[in-house]
Amino acid sequence: MSLLVVGSVAYDSVETPEERREDALGGSATYFSICSSYFTTVSVVAVVGEDFRREDIELLEACRIDTAGLERRPGKTFRWSGVYGTEDVKTRETLDTQLNVFAHFSPALNQQHRKHRYLFLGNIDPELQMQVLEQMERRPTLVALDTMNYWIEGKQDALTRVVKSVDVMFVDEGEARTFAGQANIVRAARHILSLGPTTVIIKRGEHGALVFQEDFVFAAPAFPLERVVDPTGAGDSFAGGFMGYLAGTGDLGHEGLRRAAALGSVMGSFAVEGFSTDTLSSLNRQEIEARLQSLAQLSRFQPLSANESLPWRGGQ
Amino acid sequence: MSLLVVGSVAYDSVETPEERREDALGGSATYFSICSSYFTTVSVVAVVGEDFRREDIELLEACRIDTAGLERRPGKTFRWSGVYGTEDVKTRETLDTQLNVFAHFSPALNQQHRKHRYLFLGNIDPELQMQVLEQMERRPTLVALDTMNYWIEGKQDALTRVVKSVDVMFVDEGEARTFAGQANIVRAARHILSLGPTTVIIKRGEHGALVFQEDFVFAAPAFPLERVVDPTGAGDSFAGGFMGYLAGTGDLGHEGLRRAAALGSVMGSFAVEGFSTDTLSSLNRQEIEARLQSLAQLSRFQPLSANESLPWRGGQ
Repeated sequence: MSLLVVGSVAYDSVETPEERREDALGGSATYFSICSSYFTTVSVVAVVGEDFRREDIELLEACRIDTAGLERRPGKTFRWSGVYGTEDVKTRETLDTQLNVFAHFSPALNQQHRKHRYLFLGNIDPELQMQVLEQMERRPTLVALDTMNYWIEGKQDALTRVVKSVDVMFVDEGEARTFAGQANIVRAARHILSLGPTTVIIKRGEHGALVFQEDFVFAAPAFPLERVVDPTGAGDSFAGGFMGYLAGTGDLGHEGLRRAAALGSVMGSFAVEGFSTDTLSSLNRQEIEARLQSLAQLSRFQPLSANESLPWRGGQ
Repeated sequence: MSLLVVGSVAYDSVETPEERREDALGGSATYFSICSSYFTTVSVVAVVGEDFRREDIELLEACRIDTAGLERRPGKTFRWSGVYGTEDVKTRETLDTQLNVFAHFSPALNQQHRKHRYLFLGNIDPELQMQVLEQMERRPTLVALDTMNYWIEGKQDALTRVVKSVDVMFVDEGEARTFAGQANIVRAARHILSLGPTTVIIKRGEHGALVFQEDFVFAAPAFPLERVVDPTGAGDSFAGGFMGYLAGTGDLGHEGLRRAAALGSVMGSFAVEGFSTDTLSSLNRQEIEARLQSLAQLSRFQPLSANESLPWRGGQ
């Protein structure tokens, strides 16, 4: 089924212990749409400036992403710059954020977009997320949102309203604790479920992700990588793999959710292996399937069979 | 097969956001021996003071742990006190450490202990760990060690010598990075493997554990808990479940390692559900097996079958 993503398209300047890259293609809608495009048809709604490069449009279109909703406005494209720590690649510091044309982003969906059955509300102002949802012709089959501490702290009420209207919420551990006012992550997830979403996904970076429903938990491992080049976009890539699989199969049962989260983890692992979308944008089916199979091997162990017991007290 | 553990037996005073407990039974050898005792026969070598309570000896003996190596010396039992944070139960601050009789601990193995085929060197001075290993009648089938930043920073050479002599090293993520001088956890594990151990286990607390061998990785999930009462001893409980399973089955192949790590995770989850050894010391086979099965469900997903493919590009 068709998938719509609304979010940011940006130019990121990223410094890691090993390299520095200026004005590389980034943004939540970019990572999400590229990752999901492998598994389903995707349309992106976002805003870019006059400086947005033709080659970046072409990159999205080569992924068969519908860019009719990529609005070009006078001014510059949203820019973010940050540096990742030497000790632990997860610690990142934002050096600069220039909203530019993104400051006045007001997502307008065309007639086709309004019919999409799967919707991902990327990390933008929760009031805009709600406006997007309200533009849909009818309630989509599945609506997911992502957010960040900036909105949790600054727009808790608006965010809570939109959370109550979606099916799936993506949050990292710290965000879940802050939003729910609960240090324990299971209770934080349960609190979010009590607001309305059927599914909460707690992203844990290199430690994988937890998928919670009322009577269901799945722990997706992260693929252990010997080289993390650029962690930017890992969360949106996870969401792209997850939503892309669900939209591509329509399987919203537990088995589908497990696979979707595993595929999210796979896409997140590809994302961080290259700067920007370098690795992500040129994958093939064999590479993705092979890593999914490796991930299944990584976390597989034999449960006890029906007539099997643990060794006990040294046989005493 | 028989399992020997050498480590600390202590009285811990622990404060969590919800409760405070004084002089509760603790120590690496305590947690390890109780957890492993479910799966194999265990002997403990440790030192306690004149104040060590009879009921605590009885608790160990009720678990069928051989306490012939529990030396009682003039003075007080090793005491540790600490407080766990309100925000995140993982953050802990040590308030006080009184080594007492542990300051002069010089492990002496009796004739029976020297014959044990499985050996766990708990977190003690690496020079003492080496002395224990040298007392064994012949090289055991499997020797594992645990350590901590205090020894990594203070006795790197002695620690490296003993690491080179063991089969399995348990470390947490931060310790692995410090010991290996490698921020990337996969490369840190590979560095440790290059020193000699066949197996490195990276403990990640509520995020589970990674088991590395040269051509093998297994990610054991942690059981998501709605209530963490007291995180003390979780790592030693993991090691106890892991080593207990291997000693109980003798299965040192990949399937055995997977199960062993899963059982480690199960025992770690029971450990943190109660203060001290409250929950750990009174488990039954049904409870342990049920949680192992739940853990298998938690992380299970269907890999692609031979004639199955991922949905692709919306069928285009």
